[in-house]
Amino acid sequence: MVSFDAAFRQTLAELFAWRRDVRRFRTDPVDEPLLRRCLDLAALSPSVGNSQPWRFVRVSDPLRRAEVVASFERCNADAAEAYGAERREAYVRLKLAGLREAPVHLAVFCDEATETGHGLGRATMPEMLRYSVVTAVQTFWLAARAQGLGVGWVSILEPETVCETLGVPCAWHLVAYLCVGYPVEEHADPELVRHGWQQRLETGMPLIER
Amino acid sequence: MVSFDAAFRQTLAELFAWRRDVRRFRTDPVDEPLLRRCLDLAALSPSVGNSQPWRFVRVSDPLRRAEVVASFERCNADAAEAYGAERREAYVRLKLAGLREAPVHLAVFCDEATETGHGLGRATMPEMLRYSVVTAVQTFWLAARAQGLGVGWVSILEPETVCETLGVPCAWHLVAYLCVGYPVEEHADPELVRHGWQQRLETGMPLIER
Repeated sequence: MVSFDAAFRQTLAELFAWRRDVRRFRTDPVDEPLLRRCLDLAALSPSVGNSQPWRFVRVSDPLRRAEVVASFERCNADAAEAYGAERREAYVRLKLAGLREAPVHLAVFCDEATETGHGLGRATMPEMLRYSVVTAVQTFWLAARAQGLGVGWVSILEPETVCETLGVPCAWHLVAYLCVGYPVEEHADPELVRHGWQQRLETGMPLIER
Repeated sequence: MVSFDAAFRQTLAELFAWRRDVRRFRTDPVDEPLLRRCLDLAALSPSVGNSQPWRFVRVSDPLRRAEVVASFERCNADAAEAYGAERREAYVRLKLAGLREAPVHLAVFCDEATETGHGLGRATMPEMLRYSVVTAVQTFWLAARAQGLGVGWVSILEPETVCETLGVPCAWHLVAYLCVGYPVEEHADPELVRHGWQQRLETGMPLIER
């Protein structure tokens, strides 16, 4: 029986607080065994029916990266347009992705055609397959932060464009596009709080009773 | 600048390995401050645009719990029916939920109507809101395991039935239904591996290059 002590729990709480979405990266490379170690830990994540539907793709080709950056820029411009004047001004001042600087790009897919797990747990909630991939992203993120790496999750993208650019199987659904590298600066508060976009709702988690 | 040492990383890797989906619970209660502590840590999870869309509902009312158990039993019987003879025999031997024994039930919703975050990051990938709730579930799970608690994620349920039974706002979408309590036994391998349903695909995470 494995148990965890109070000192570990205290440091784990600090890891949760200092995880953060990073958009400002140094350009120096990430040590390969260290990246692999974080990915291997992500493979320990929960998955519905033990389906392990996560598929991690490293995007290194400069032309493919440029396509992803172009998709981000289109989506980001459209998003800015959709806001009223005041919000738009705040929006365009935000730095929302570190795609140009981050040494590692990881596109994370869900293999919707997988037979692994034999469909267990997915009949009434088929979205569980994608949720399993999200847990792997979160595990990777925590493992990376514990190694001093920063991760930024970019969702201001056209998923179809990313799939086409990377030439992945049609049954693969894009769940996350991650920038990975060493952060320029580190914070315990979210960038969107620091830059006045959205404050925390309250301290702690409210619990509703039924 | 907070950094994490090798000893912490080693124990974190053990936490990932020993997390596990638990279906066999002791019935003794969970200490309230301990549960609250795990929930508060879940509030530190990443969320798109800092939208914090997670809504945690504790289900204590025996009639409501009975409705949830009934939904599980209907879905589980239907799922068994859908398999061929051999798989069905394996399926019905599995214990897939600890709903009757677990002292704490948590239904976790995504508030799809929230304006928190002002829509940032959700225009082209609206599913990001639900994914944010999944990261909170995974954070809660790890925090709970570090406290010696077990968590089981039940997806063999009718989401509409759960929403109606709990009388939550229409805009709340069920993401997860969690059983929480002290586990009867602990393992580092998944129950579905141990009972021959689905093995691990391979050691570690394959990385595809593009």
